[in-house]
Amino acid sequence: MKRSTTEILAKLRQLMLRTQVGESSGISAYIVPSDDAHQSEYQCQHDERRSFVSGFDGSAGTAVITTDNALLWTDGRYYQQAEKQLDSNWVLMRDGLTTTPSIGAWLAKNLPKGSFVGVDPRLLSFRVWKPIETELISAECQLVPIENNLIDEVWGQDQPPQTSNKIITLKLEYSGVPIAKKWEVVRNQLKDKNADALVVSALDEIAWFLNLRGSDIDFNPVFFSYLIVTHDGLLLFVDSGKLPTDFAQHQTENNVQISVLPYASIGLEISKIVSTKESKIWIAPTSSYYLTALIPKSRRIQEVTPICVLKSIKNDVEVKGFVNSHIRDGVALCQYFAWLEDQVKKGAEVDEISGSDKLESFRASKDKYMGLSFTTISASGPNGSVIHYHPKEETNRKINDKEIYLCDSGAQYLDGTTDVTRTLHFGEPTEFQKEAYTRVLKGQLSFGATVFPAKVKGQVLDTLARKALWDVGLDYGHGTGHGVGHFLNVHEGPMGVGIRLMPDDPGLQANMFISNEPGFYQDGEFGIRVEDIVQIVPGKVAHNFAKRGALTFKTITMCPKQTKMIKKELLSDVEVKLLNDYHQDVWDTLSPILSREGDEFTLAWLKKEVQPI
Amino acid sequence: MKRSTTEILAKLRQLMLRTQVGESSGISAYIVPSDDAHQSEYQCQHDERRSFVSGFDGSAGTAVITTDNALLWTDGRYYQQAEKQLDSNWVLMRDGLTTTPSIGAWLAKNLPKGSFVGVDPRLLSFRVWKPIETELISAECQLVPIENNLIDEVWGQDQPPQTSNKIITLKLEYSGVPIAKKWEVVRNQLKDKNADALVVSALDEIAWFLNLRGSDIDFNPVFFSYLIVTHDGLLLFVDSGKLPTDFAQHQTENNVQISVLPYASIGLEISKIVSTKESKIWIAPTSSYYLTALIPKSRRIQEVTPICVLKSIKNDVEVKGFVNSHIRDGVALCQYFAWLEDQVKKGAEVDEISGSDKLESFRASKDKYMGLSFTTISASGPNGSVIHYHPKEETNRKINDKEIYLCDSGAQYLDGTTDVTRTLHFGEPTEFQKEAYTRVLKGQLSFGATVFPAKVKGQVLDTLARKALWDVGLDYGHGTGHGVGHFLNVHEGPMGVGIRLMPDDPGLQANMFISNEPGFYQDGEFGIRVEDIVQIVPGKVAHNFAKRGALTFKTITMCPKQTKMIKKELLSDVEVKLLNDYHQDVWDTLSPILSREGDEFTLAWLKKEVQPI
Repeated sequence: MKRSTTEILAKLRQLMLRTQVGESSGISAYIVPSDDAHQSEYQCQHDERRSFVSGFDGSAGTAVITTDNALLWTDGRYYQQAEKQLDSNWVLMRDGLTTTPSIGAWLAKNLPKGSFVGVDPRLLSFRVWKPIETELISAECQLVPIENNLIDEVWGQDQPPQTSNKIITLKLEYSGVPIAKKWEVVRNQLKDKNADALVVSALDEIAWFLNLRGSDIDFNPVFFSYLIVTHDGLLLFVDSGKLPTDFAQHQTENNVQISVLPYASIGLEISKIVSTKESKIWIAPTSSYYLTALIPKSRRIQEVTPICVLKSIKNDVEVKGFVNSHIRDGVALCQYFAWLEDQVKKGAEVDEISGSDKLESFRASKDKYMGLSFTTISASGPNGSVIHYHPKEETNRKINDKEIYLCDSGAQYLDGTTDVTRTLHFGEPTEFQKEAYTRVLKGQLSFGATVFPAKVKGQVLDTLARKALWDVGLDYGHGTGHGVGHFLNVHEGPMGVGIRLMPDDPGLQANMFISNEPGFYQDGEFGIRVEDIVQIVPGKVAHNFAKRGALTFKTITMCPKQTKMIKKELLSDVEVKLLNDYHQDVWDTLSPILSREGDEFTLAWLKKEVQPI
Repeated sequence: MKRSTTEILAKLRQLMLRTQVGESSGISAYIVPSDDAHQSEYQCQHDERRSFVSGFDGSAGTAVITTDNALLWTDGRYYQQAEKQLDSNWVLMRDGLTTTPSIGAWLAKNLPKGSFVGVDPRLLSFRVWKPIETELISAECQLVPIENNLIDEVWGQDQPPQTSNKIITLKLEYSGVPIAKKWEVVRNQLKDKNADALVVSALDEIAWFLNLRGSDIDFNPVFFSYLIVTHDGLLLFVDSGKLPTDFAQHQTENNVQISVLPYASIGLEISKIVSTKESKIWIAPTSSYYLTALIPKSRRIQEVTPICVLKSIKNDVEVKGFVNSHIRDGVALCQYFAWLEDQVKKGAEVDEISGSDKLESFRASKDKYMGLSFTTISASGPNGSVIHYHPKEETNRKINDKEIYLCDSGAQYLDGTTDVTRTLHFGEPTEFQKEAYTRVLKGQLSFGATVFPAKVKGQVLDTLARKALWDVGLDYGHGTGHGVGHFLNVHEGPMGVGIRLMPDDPGLQANMFISNEPGFYQDGEFGIRVEDIVQIVPGKVAHNFAKRGALTFKTITMCPKQTKMIKKELLSDVEVKLLNDYHQDVWDTLSPILSREGDEFTLAWLKKEVQPI
């Protein structure tokens, strides 16, 4: 489970000692973010530097190495996993607890005055850089960009190369809107802001804007590139060898001409625009410090990009695809859970890994399937309490009728991306497990039925999903909802529903899609999560928030929620009706398909699972 | 209603034209905040510059005057009032709407490059200054401190002088903790932060820390002063003529020695500390730009002061006083409402002003009464929809049996501060009025019974109070709860419950006191608000948020909520029980006092009002 990092740290500290900063030699601390140069949430292996140096391979976390300390900051989803993976060289800093200092505050307190703290400026967003810089300045220390990446030097020959897979075009029947039309909207916003250019480094924004998809990062259909949008040009910085063969035709169909430049020339091009144009340049505050610093402060617009917001509000074709892909995905899920229940009851050997493989095979048989959208969390018993667990050989457990089974999974289809969690018990759950499940479900039903004023930030809805758990002193250590891309990243902004503010949240709007996923985790015992994807739709209520507009959610995930786990006496009449109506909807939607496919086995299971309570 | 500002604006624009900025002459815009030099929420008349220049006299708002525009930003509580008070020279900027630009953004967009924007640096907090400065820099404009206040120059002879009333000492039987003990806690926090000094400019923090009270600002028992706390001294900057005669004895009782310096010498003293000491200086981000800029950036700790947080967590003596003062206040309220109902039924002439005078007289008869805690909002019919209305001769309405009467009032007692709202109808409310009232009450009951994890920020609870209104597309344009001082300001931080984040909220903790006040307002027709003060207390639930601790609220306001306004079928069984239990509690607490006082009239009214539904 734990990999020794002693040698890696020793080498890194030698390099830190030899690093030149101006006249001085030696940096006192080195920050290793989990980001790649595009601030992607997930990375290709080439970019898994924080995992390499620390041994902790969760999706979020930042390592800080000083002369005599090694610390890893990560959030509530990963406390358990980090405890298991970090060796004794490391101290786990539990991010999100009020007692845990920020990285900047810790460094400011623990480093002597005059210290230099190094970081690769491509791997830290401006937004993260700035507060660390401020803390360090106040402690008379300095955050300095180190252009050559020290981890890469330590890693050497063994570091996997950056992936460069072939790009594919996404036809208008799936994307819905030609590039020219998206460009027009962006151009108008550039005009409004008196800006010459928009610099885009987020890979999903580039893929969405250009109606292209890639496979450079597992599960995330994106490709390494940068994009600059100006009033008269689209500059795509990409290894031209990976462009699709139908790229010329793609441009014609999308009514645009795209200039292709070398991936590495982005910095040069920004500098050129800075020196030849006079107006402003728009770059997201989530772009790297490196790119941002190329633009003089007075010339910068640092706001979420218009592409990021446009992308989150699905167009009609994307909406239709989202709904349809969730129906196909629901069929696969039902087939898996029907099969699994039967296997467990028969006493067959199914474990977390073989289970998730089976689920993948059901999904792979579906139309427009393009792969998984993330590593399946197939977790039995105590593994379910590790929030972002995924099974490995050494943790693999049998799926049985004694423990709760939590399955959080999703797929990429040409017409949409799915993400769904169901929690099941194939034997007799304890009273406490049933209570916890019922309270999670209450929160989920209540959240999913919330009517709210248009454009409220997602954050204000978060507590509604927790209320039923809070009533008895229970809670969960993660957010309630995240945006989902359209055949794109399974987590996308700018909106989100959680205790922490999403700083770029433009407010919830119709045709955004988010997850609805409260949970409960009993450390070392079990985990419960119920997750649907919901579409934001107009709310039909008597009043209209004084013309502001009413919104609510429509659940598009199609898969029963195990009623065996429910203590009905804890549900209100409204909640019972919401659940029964949902199950009726699932039956009405999926049963004709299963019938048509002649899958009587799954149909029988589904019939049983959707019985009203 | 509207006062012409034409002449004032003309004079101001002349002064703006003549203002020197370095070599240049003339500023393009002048910002008039509502703050005084202490960033008080309410001001003495001397400091009502924004009201003087704009005609709008609400408690929150900022005026911006350019060569050809005059704009006033204010929030949802004051839209209606501002519309009524601003003359045609002014444009109302509705703060809080997504379509309303910030002051900085508006200036950046509308001023030509190279413009100077002036403001009195004493009247703008650093926190407000900074984003405006940033926006202006990005538009190649500049925010400049103008030391002489231009409004004062325009106002001239007619400007009332700064008040300088006598200070009183608050005995330990009311304050609970001697200054020496408070100082010790602050000193430890200074040590932790490696700081030499804490600069305090917030008047309520100074009053609380020094166990002193004043009356320089109506309703707010504070006195104009600054305080510097160091490891070895307490420096109080105050007009020494206003010190209480028992000041020497006060210091002895509180086991401290306080050095008194002239009020105006605060800047000098900060500069002296900067130049003679080496460690940091702590100042709140809510202190003025003027004070903050005296401390070099690298020497500053800009965080909420330890005094602000300590003050919000009431000590045992303060808690007891809070509870007791609310009981006495409840008696006065019941006496008023009983009297009022009788008067209205008799057809007697009672109007908003005479009503509030009567309420004041009941309060004034109570033990330890020191005055009102804010201007009573005594509002009949459409006046109730103006959220922070208070009656004036020209708006005064008769209180009658045709309209809803909203009464939001509070008092200062030596042992606590009250703030309570009740909404009543003395005739037949409409179905819609009853539905709105019931949904407001549902939110209030549900919020008041919430169990939550210790130290969550107040913001996360806000939506719980709105949910029942949201269910049918209704909402209210203000926060749900604010802190309340102990014989101090009726609004105090650092915590609060609202849609907007309170940036300094340290998380809700036991023995904080906040208001619980959802509402609903039908523009031009009626207003509904039900407000109690609640104490944060440990929650008794089966689990304990994984050792984090469970908290809940205890309502200490003692006054019935009119059950005639309730549509019982909209309440859940739990809500009915909460209301009935509350009314039983009010009866058990107040009836013995009314009996003892022989007030059979009020007792009979109370008996009727607390009947279970």
